[in-house]
Amino acid sequence: MNNFTFYNPVKILFGKGQISAIAQEIPAGSRVMMTYGGGSIKKNGVYEQVMEALKGFEVLEFSGIEPNPHYETLMQAVDIAKRQNIDFFLAVGGGSVIDGTKFIVAAMEYEGEEPWDILAKHERITKAAPFGAVLTLPATGSEMNSGAVINRVATKEKFSFGSPVTFPKFSVLDPETTFTLPVRQISNGVVDAFSHVLEQYLTYPVNAPLQDRMAEAVLLTLKEEGPKAVKNPDDYDTMANFMWAATMALNGVIRVGVPTDWATHYIGHELTALHGIDHARTLAIVFPSLMRYKIGAKKEKLLQYGERVWGVDSGTEDERLEATIQATIAFFESLGVKTKLSDYEVGEDTIETIVQRFEERGVKDLGERSDIQIQDVEQILKLSL
Amino acid sequence: MNNFTFYNPVKILFGKGQISAIAQEIPAGSRVMMTYGGGSIKKNGVYEQVMEALKGFEVLEFSGIEPNPHYETLMQAVDIAKRQNIDFFLAVGGGSVIDGTKFIVAAMEYEGEEPWDILAKHERITKAAPFGAVLTLPATGSEMNSGAVINRVATKEKFSFGSPVTFPKFSVLDPETTFTLPVRQISNGVVDAFSHVLEQYLTYPVNAPLQDRMAEAVLLTLKEEGPKAVKNPDDYDTMANFMWAATMALNGVIRVGVPTDWATHYIGHELTALHGIDHARTLAIVFPSLMRYKIGAKKEKLLQYGERVWGVDSGTEDERLEATIQATIAFFESLGVKTKLSDYEVGEDTIETIVQRFEERGVKDLGERSDIQIQDVEQILKLSL
Repeated sequence: MNNFTFYNPVKILFGKGQISAIAQEIPAGSRVMMTYGGGSIKKNGVYEQVMEALKGFEVLEFSGIEPNPHYETLMQAVDIAKRQNIDFFLAVGGGSVIDGTKFIVAAMEYEGEEPWDILAKHERITKAAPFGAVLTLPATGSEMNSGAVINRVATKEKFSFGSPVTFPKFSVLDPETTFTLPVRQISNGVVDAFSHVLEQYLTYPVNAPLQDRMAEAVLLTLKEEGPKAVKNPDDYDTMANFMWAATMALNGVIRVGVPTDWATHYIGHELTALHGIDHARTLAIVFPSLMRYKIGAKKEKLLQYGERVWGVDSGTEDERLEATIQATIAFFESLGVKTKLSDYEVGEDTIETIVQRFEERGVKDLGERSDIQIQDVEQILKLSL
Repeated sequence: MNNFTFYNPVKILFGKGQISAIAQEIPAGSRVMMTYGGGSIKKNGVYEQVMEALKGFEVLEFSGIEPNPHYETLMQAVDIAKRQNIDFFLAVGGGSVIDGTKFIVAAMEYEGEEPWDILAKHERITKAAPFGAVLTLPATGSEMNSGAVINRVATKEKFSFGSPVTFPKFSVLDPETTFTLPVRQISNGVVDAFSHVLEQYLTYPVNAPLQDRMAEAVLLTLKEEGPKAVKNPDDYDTMANFMWAATMALNGVIRVGVPTDWATHYIGHELTALHGIDHARTLAIVFPSLMRYKIGAKKEKLLQYGERVWGVDSGTEDERLEATIQATIAFFESLGVKTKLSDYEVGEDTIETIVQRFEERGVKDLGERSDIQIQDVEQILKLSL
């Protein structure tokens, strides 16, 4: 096992009716900015529940945070919040709203000249305004970690950042808030969470059997609950299990002391930035090809994953590896998430563009062994054509 | 899945050499009281490492915290710490030292007249002095939770308490600190951690597959690593896996949203209080009998536990249940931990005494369904004779 530091102070309030508990978690007298997206929370009753819970606080609303939240939009929120002396933020929505709010709270206290540097130059941030979250879409895990991914429309760039000061103070996970989600968002959420686990699991063994089994626990839960969630998004237990699995997939518990990959995410971000493909779908496109391209380096964990998650336990080693990749593809496709670039009408020219962008930005050495170079990215994407 | 709140802000510093990092975790200028036990840390180099790391701080030592820490001893520490204006505590040792230090930090800030009420009357505490821990004995999980168990010698009583303010600020888990542990402490630690998981798992199903699998992940790790740890306590990876499993067994992650039992602990505490039997050994005595006595109420989880942890997958239901209990007993015994009262020269008269003490104290309704009454405790203990 590798050395590690683990720290996650997020308070989780899980279950039906928990939105009503947020007032006890926000300092009395706070001026609250409630951030949200396109307004789905106004259709499913979440908006009313939050407003009811916030009675007694001064609340300013900031809506319109996009999927793959835009830097430009978030800076508007920062501007308004500063002028209105906001001192607590409440993100109500999915990963994009929570990620966006993390950037807002960091930018609120940023003392450098250009908040974009937090993203583009990885400027270290040491303070942030406090915020909480009400999660309505299980997927990204943002509700229980300190990381965020932000898009800049003007330059078609997508960058991530994170800091110990950008954990939510609390997150409400009420499965009932997910009952009206569109199927597409549920299937994306399952694939996103599943991929998060794979990024932290499908590397090489370091004699960490507990972390392995905990990762497999999340994968098996998503394998079983994911298809049920797509079919019955108003089944409480199903959505509760999916919701908690998506949170556990990226709250740090399964990644302690083990190597992590994240190359699939880096490559996928480019597809979102260039073509607006849903984040989860970019992962479904890239992961099977990356598995195949790195079949040698990832062999031991691929075989373990195949056996323990998909029951692949017979045949030659090569046959088992292939069956494992096929099982992964079949799982994604069974959820309605396509796995080829051609399914999204993306061709070879995009691969050239991505390679060029990586070259310009100096990105190299991706993967758990830092052995995925720009030319490997090209080969991986070609396998996804 | 049941509703739940999860909160665990303990920062974990895991791995070799991490003791040197504690200076960055303690506020500059702190007057530190270093608490420890009987002096084993002076034989294995941990004392020197801690002292080296604490250079620059004023450090007062308080040694002599016993296994099953004594209220009387801890109150001496409180007295000294108050007179010496101590403002940070560092527990160096196993669960007893960390538990004892939790009581010290709570008593430091307790405003009631009688700190014993924190234990005997479950007085709610709202503040505590800050403390960190250097763990040297994987077992109790105290390093990453807010609970503690304290003994009062004068009255032969053993009570627990806990509060959101008694989490360690940080805990160092360096597997190398465990290399010189006596076999008895290692085997006790494995049984203790294993029992902690069973208390949170062996109840009744509430459709929480992720929590089930995470609990099984810890059990399987202890099943595999425990016997290796007893044989080779200086194998780094083995001790690292055992250490992390013992922490994960009781840091709250596996208990979210599921019922918990703890009857075995309550009953076991009496055996320690009356006969000084090691805590873990009392669990090994009580658990098999409790499983057998509650075989009907726990049937579904017992069958799942048997199949997934011990590979018990054939025979009639009754045969599988019996095989599962036998596998548990065999595991404890294989570690050198005896499972019968007679092994500890404890007879039926003690059962009468325990029943009497429960009656006097008004203890009843133990177990995940609150259906273990005092007469059931008697029957359970008789099965352990």
